[in-house]
Amino acid sequence: MTYKFCSHCGERTITEIPNGDNRERTVCRSCDTVHYQNPKLIVGCIVENNDQILLCKRSIEPQLEKWTLPAGYMENSETTAQGALRETFEESGAVVKLHGAYRLFDLPTINQMYLLFRGKMISCPFLPTSESSEVRLFRQDQIPWDQIAFPVIVTTLQHYYNDTDKNIFSFENHVITLK
Amino acid sequence: MTYKFCSHCGERTITEIPNGDNRERTVCRSCDTVHYQNPKLIVGCIVENNDQILLCKRSIEPQLEKWTLPAGYMENSETTAQGALRETFEESGAVVKLHGAYRLFDLPTINQMYLLFRGKMISCPFLPTSESSEVRLFRQDQIPWDQIAFPVIVTTLQHYYNDTDKNIFSFENHVITLK
Repeated sequence: MTYKFCSHCGERTITEIPNGDNRERTVCRSCDTVHYQNPKLIVGCIVENNDQILLCKRSIEPQLEKWTLPAGYMENSETTAQGALRETFEESGAVVKLHGAYRLFDLPTINQMYLLFRGKMISCPFLPTSESSEVRLFRQDQIPWDQIAFPVIVTTLQHYYNDTDKNIFSFENHVITLK
Repeated sequence: MTYKFCSHCGERTITEIPNGDNRERTVCRSCDTVHYQNPKLIVGCIVENNDQILLCKRSIEPQLEKWTLPAGYMENSETTAQGALRETFEESGAVVKLHGAYRLFDLPTINQMYLLFRGKMISCPFLPTSESSEVRLFRQDQIPWDQIAFPVIVTTLQHYYNDTDKNIFSFENHVITLK
């Protein structure tokens, strides 16, 4: 969200290149505050249970009723792993033991990054949550490919099943350019 | 930075737990905007030149005159790799070919993450920049350990030289808890 008003003093902001900088920022001339805006990190998890993984059916916009991996914005004061575990629990009720970071996707056209972990399901009550109308385990041949919420999740699942065939799950960093 | 005023409408904000949320946020009651605050990602690079790496002497606060790896806040509309290359060029003048992501450090006590790449130096004019009063290559036995700017940079260099001994540079994710 852009800063129409200064969050520090409430005055109207302007757009300019500050001294010593090389790009346009939202700036308050009244209190000399520069309002930097930076990409946000979304953390999530591929939750494994033998040959199945967990998907959540979204009960909120955007992409209502589509299936996704549990994931959401990382919060202040937590680690990436804590964020992935928290989002997984909040969206699916699943308690997970993480194996480690699996994929980092840069989405520069929407100022987001996705960091997906892999983890083993320890327990899951399989109850709907406030964010998911349905939580289910899927084998590879059951994945609803045409009902997946976001391109980055489709790509994550494609990478995951490619790696499953090889049984090698090294960390990789990729860019996804959305139209 | 906290939102004393709403950046959308300029009214004073309050702190409360919004409906459907589970933690306190800065909220504008006037226009119903929730001002989320999330961790920021700092991207940087270990620039290799044979058995040497590049360090920059900071010409700005904090940690003025201390040595650091080139690194800085990731900007909107760029990828993590582009950010690491940009910061490396801005702070050192070095042009680099990246090998890949090397370490992701969570710093939950200061709401930051550091993503450090490894890369090979292609060219470097070795001129001071607006952010660095000196840019130099160091062999391991020349690293000024007591003059390194930030704990996360000390840890990165320790990991890097441990991995150099083994000649294995796998990606790892760690947490650094600052007092």
